Amino acid sequence: MADNQRPGEFELIERYFAPLAGPGGLGLLDDAGLLRPGRGYEVVVTADALVAGVHFFPDDPPAAIGWKALAVNLSDLAAKGAKPEGFVLTIALPRNWTEGWLKDFAAGLGRLAQQAGCPLIGGDTVSTSGPLTLSITAFGAVPAGRMVRRAGAKPGDVVLVSGSIGDGALGLKVHGPDKPGWVAALDDGQRGFLADRYLHPQPRTTLAEALQRHASAAMDISDGLVGDLAKMLKASRVGAEIDLDAVPLSGPARAALMADPALAELAWTGGDDYEILCTAPEGEYSSLIAAAAEHAVPLTPIGRIVSGAGAVRYSGKGAAQGFAHGSFSHF
Amino acid sequence: MADNQRPGEFELIERYFAPLAGPGGLGLLDDAGLLRPGRGYEVVVTADALVAGVHFFPDDPPAAIGWKALAVNLSDLAAKGAKPEGFVLTIALPRNWTEGWLKDFAAGLGRLAQQAGCPLIGGDTVSTSGPLTLSITAFGAVPAGRMVRRAGAKPGDVVLVSGSIGDGALGLKVHGPDKPGWVAALDDGQRGFLADRYLHPQPRTTLAEALQRHASAAMDISDGLVGDLAKMLKASRVGAEIDLDAVPLSGPARAALMADPALAELAWTGGDDYEILCTAPEGEYSSLIAAAAEHAVPLTPIGRIVSGAGAVRYSGKGAAQGFAHGSFSHF
Repeated sequence: MADNQRPGEFELIERYFAPLAGPGGLGLLDDAGLLRPGRGYEVVVTADALVAGVHFFPDDPPAAIGWKALAVNLSDLAAKGAKPEGFVLTIALPRNWTEGWLKDFAAGLGRLAQQAGCPLIGGDTVSTSGPLTLSITAFGAVPAGRMVRRAGAKPGDVVLVSGSIGDGALGLKVHGPDKPGWVAALDDGQRGFLADRYLHPQPRTTLAEALQRHASAAMDISDGLVGDLAKMLKASRVGAEIDLDAVPLSGPARAALMADPALAELAWTGGDDYEILCTAPEGEYSSLIAAAAEHAVPLTPIGRIVSGAGAVRYSGKGAAQGFAHGSFSHF
Repeated sequence: MADNQRPGEFELIERYFAPLAGPGGLGLLDDAGLLRPGRGYEVVVTADALVAGVHFFPDDPPAAIGWKALAVNLSDLAAKGAKPEGFVLTIALPRNWTEGWLKDFAAGLGRLAQQAGCPLIGGDTVSTSGPLTLSITAFGAVPAGRMVRRAGAKPGDVVLVSGSIGDGALGLKVHGPDKPGWVAALDDGQRGFLADRYLHPQPRTTLAEALQRHASAAMDISDGLVGDLAKMLKASRVGAEIDLDAVPLSGPARAALMADPALAELAWTGGDDYEILCTAPEGEYSSLIAAAAEHAVPLTPIGRIVSGAGAVRYSGKGAAQGFAHGSFSHF
């Protein structure tokens, strides 16, 4: 129950969430919202829950929490080749929530919703005796039968990743309360870049159409490249040969690895990349790279799909060390 | 993180949730599910979050918790005139979850999903330091432009409710830990009926088509008849004249009110009915009643819509007492 200093459920929705609603949200005044996929389109549906203390720090900037809650869902839609159409939010507010917190949260959420053209169409607001808990279900449109699957990778396909890998996991160390020694070796700009990559992941929405046209399989990298690649290979029942030296790293990530070479494993296995892992047939991958480049998103080939379900052969400098941690898990 | 005695996230999904998945869930092996509305149909989207200790007792039977989490969403779809098509579930499991709990939860959830023809198409499983938290987003299909709104009630329309009112709120008292004196005046069958109405609400899915054809406005009653009627009147910018003596009560509810006449207010204002409140024009309401009767669902006229935004005039025995509590709030 809200106390006298705070708005009730309906004022709260009217003040902070109704401004994020699209036409399908019906002003958040009804029991339901509407999705109207165009003729010949299907609706891609994805859902992610985030819990304070598990997926983010409870005292993270509320605008960053709002941004990230939607970003991780938009990242899934992008990987599936889908254009964002809308989302619903359920939010369980802890006892000590404040109106200022909620206002900033809604502002961060709304900023990405507007940027991505993905309005709020419904949701629910409840209270909890536990930590802040968010659940977003996001909707995207794809031409019927064209959703990009995890299971489509074929032997001979080229394996590619978008952007740079490892920034999110390194950024978590930079941003978190216990900063390792190597953080001091970075300059302010490098620290800021990595922390921002953790706090404000940029969903690769602009890649959706290129993936839908040229990719044989795709997923977003949320639990680390190594672990998510293993999931894709398992779903596709194929193996891969990956050149770790080809995995793209940002300048700040390279600086961190120079300070502590053991961080390479964190970059390859840590979570929170929100980049795209995809495969494309030999005859398609250069078109895919070119289409991505039109949106200023680099796509880098890092290996090949081979036969042999689930088997990965890593080459390159870090290959000998193995991966002690495997996939990152938020569970 | 799961300990050694419990399945990990992927085993858990494979063992307990994949069996609930429909074709659009893609075996819960991808990052997203698919909705394929038929040509000329729109997707109605509704979401409800439930928190242990707020919406249900933490030690309620897990199968009942699973049933209810889906039921409250299907109730919204029914009120909107939509046929259930699928749902996504995000679940935040508390530290002390057990495999047995989860198995029973999934069984209760799956029983209603199967009965309603509403398969699981995706979701997310995370851990929390707080109470069990569930969020379900459910999808239904309506012919384009035919979703039944809250805002469609017009002066002269007849106001109707489905089933019987107040059983859920009375059932909460019967089921809860602090049993009031009147509970002892009921027999076992009456107590069982009311508790079951609280634990296993029956969404009025079979009413959807009749509402979509004949109703001018509808919503489900989740926060009490009096409070939810006020919301409908506000959205429709109309008033109503309601005969409280006409509000349908079940036999066990009548027995409770005989034992303690003051319970009438609880019946009219308490939550957890999951019945349908609707309006229909003079020329349509008998067709609506007849269509509902084909599915063995009684619809009872309880009053009329009048002009005058938000004004309700209650008549009947309880009308003089006023409503001290107004709408029930889970927030």
